[in-house]
Amino acid sequence: MRALMFDGALKLQEIDPPVRPPNHALLKMRAVGICNTDIELLNGYYNFHGVLGHEFVAEVIEGADEWIGKRVVGEINIACESCDYCQRGIPSQCHNRKTLGIRDYQGAFAEYLTLPVRNLHAVPDSISDDQAVFVEPLASALEIPELVHIQPGSSVIVIGAGKLGLLCAQVLNHLGADVSVVVRRQKPRELLAAWGIKALESGSLMESSTDVVIDCTGTEDGIKTALDIAKPRGSVIMKSTYARKANINLSQAVVKELRLIGTRCGPFPAAIRLLARKSIDVESMIDAHYEIEDAVAALDAANESGKLKVIVHF
Amino acid sequence: MRALMFDGALKLQEIDPPVRPPNHALLKMRAVGICNTDIELLNGYYNFHGVLGHEFVAEVIEGADEWIGKRVVGEINIACESCDYCQRGIPSQCHNRKTLGIRDYQGAFAEYLTLPVRNLHAVPDSISDDQAVFVEPLASALEIPELVHIQPGSSVIVIGAGKLGLLCAQVLNHLGADVSVVVRRQKPRELLAAWGIKALESGSLMESSTDVVIDCTGTEDGIKTALDIAKPRGSVIMKSTYARKANINLSQAVVKELRLIGTRCGPFPAAIRLLARKSIDVESMIDAHYEIEDAVAALDAANESGKLKVIVHF
Repeated sequence: MRALMFDGALKLQEIDPPVRPPNHALLKMRAVGICNTDIELLNGYYNFHGVLGHEFVAEVIEGADEWIGKRVVGEINIACESCDYCQRGIPSQCHNRKTLGIRDYQGAFAEYLTLPVRNLHAVPDSISDDQAVFVEPLASALEIPELVHIQPGSSVIVIGAGKLGLLCAQVLNHLGADVSVVVRRQKPRELLAAWGIKALESGSLMESSTDVVIDCTGTEDGIKTALDIAKPRGSVIMKSTYARKANINLSQAVVKELRLIGTRCGPFPAAIRLLARKSIDVESMIDAHYEIEDAVAALDAANESGKLKVIVHF
Repeated sequence: MRALMFDGALKLQEIDPPVRPPNHALLKMRAVGICNTDIELLNGYYNFHGVLGHEFVAEVIEGADEWIGKRVVGEINIACESCDYCQRGIPSQCHNRKTLGIRDYQGAFAEYLTLPVRNLHAVPDSISDDQAVFVEPLASALEIPELVHIQPGSSVIVIGAGKLGLLCAQVLNHLGADVSVVVRRQKPRELLAAWGIKALESGSLMESSTDVVIDCTGTEDGIKTALDIAKPRGSVIMKSTYARKANINLSQAVVKELRLIGTRCGPFPAAIRLLARKSIDVESMIDAHYEIEDAVAALDAANESGKLKVIVHF
């Protein structure tokens, strides 16, 4: 089967299809979205070598009978089911987990994939393939209200108007919060205008002005700005991983009694509900479509500055 | 009156006594404790010049009639009473605050001091002067459970067995939590043994092992260790200000979904209750007593590595 491999260099390669272990489904890939994490992996993050990809929609072709023929999305953490986090119902923090296309597990940029049946979620007919590849990143945005009580009366600023930032802004806007997004480019500015969400210039940010700040940049500049503009007793949500160490003034966090909260993978069922209800606009965030034979070009395109979602079809 | 001044150099100096503004009490100092923040101020923190000192017990000699002759401690934030934080009942985060002996307000290492009457708390007879100088730092330790829900079932590790770390350990130990303190020196090891709190070698710390980690070091090493040993979804409490920027791996906080929480000044009434009940042992933490004429030597002594509380008497 064809797969998008990274072994220091990125290439489309013919590899053996996976052998299905017990309690796993064999999936035939339909579409895969490209995430900034994929780009980071190409830059050496996690020292990953193998098949990339973790935002996917596929069809079940082998495994548990009741799933055959169904379109599914899949949770990306392959958990051990026995550690204390698995016992507590938090498999995303399993001590022994593998992570689809990120850590110790071959990813979704391949014609076939096996995944534990318990990781699968059926995709209703009302959600298209293009929309379904957003389930994983939308779930990640939903991890913010999953872990943090965001009050409807809060002022919220999202730093970073990329794919994840725009999903976070839509999610928090639905809560009733007063959401603004720091924007540099025209495309996200237009999307935000269409959604009724305010766009801000970075020059207009005010110190200690904001109840909840979401850093979607994963950069030192992003977290520094977040610490600056958060109000005393405010929350700073770290939504992206940081490719490099950040050199920051933690006394700001102490003196303002801030909460810095890291968030990662989120609830798939909630993401599916919101997409089925058309509450979140993801289609406007799609910038390009590619076929699997052009997957290397797709990654190149996704790597262009300001590019929103790029989807690869099978 | 005599006062301990810092203007780039530290000296005992004769200065004019303060003039009492409306709604302020005139206090005659009885005893002042030396805090690590005083040491930091000598090293340039906040660029403070003036009279140091903010952990004090004094007698009211002028001001509101009902206070005359009373022994008091005083909250260190002089708030504006009109900003949104003052309106919300959080004067410690007042946007326009001055801070006793730390920012824009002459401190307590002086024979006389004026402070708003609303900042005062009466000290019951059951609390000695020596104990009373611990009200401010004990309140700061109590700000941890004030801002963060610490579950009795939690494992807690305190990093930094100095004055503040030992108070935090005692406070959290009373909650029923499973508390350990990272210790290098013999004196804190003995105190912890007497209090029935475990002492740990830094070499025995285990990655992702602990529900709640308290960094009382205010150093890059301290916060790095805290991020390492905190469990997924755990809390890292930042209890000390950081003299320098810290260069840290924030991806750890994202991937483990940690909460980093800054805490500062805390509830004086709770600290007074716990001291009156003899629930917190502060007297064993006193390492030296000085008279005000030897205050410079007192600061030198407090600056010695491993020194616990040094108290200056008037």
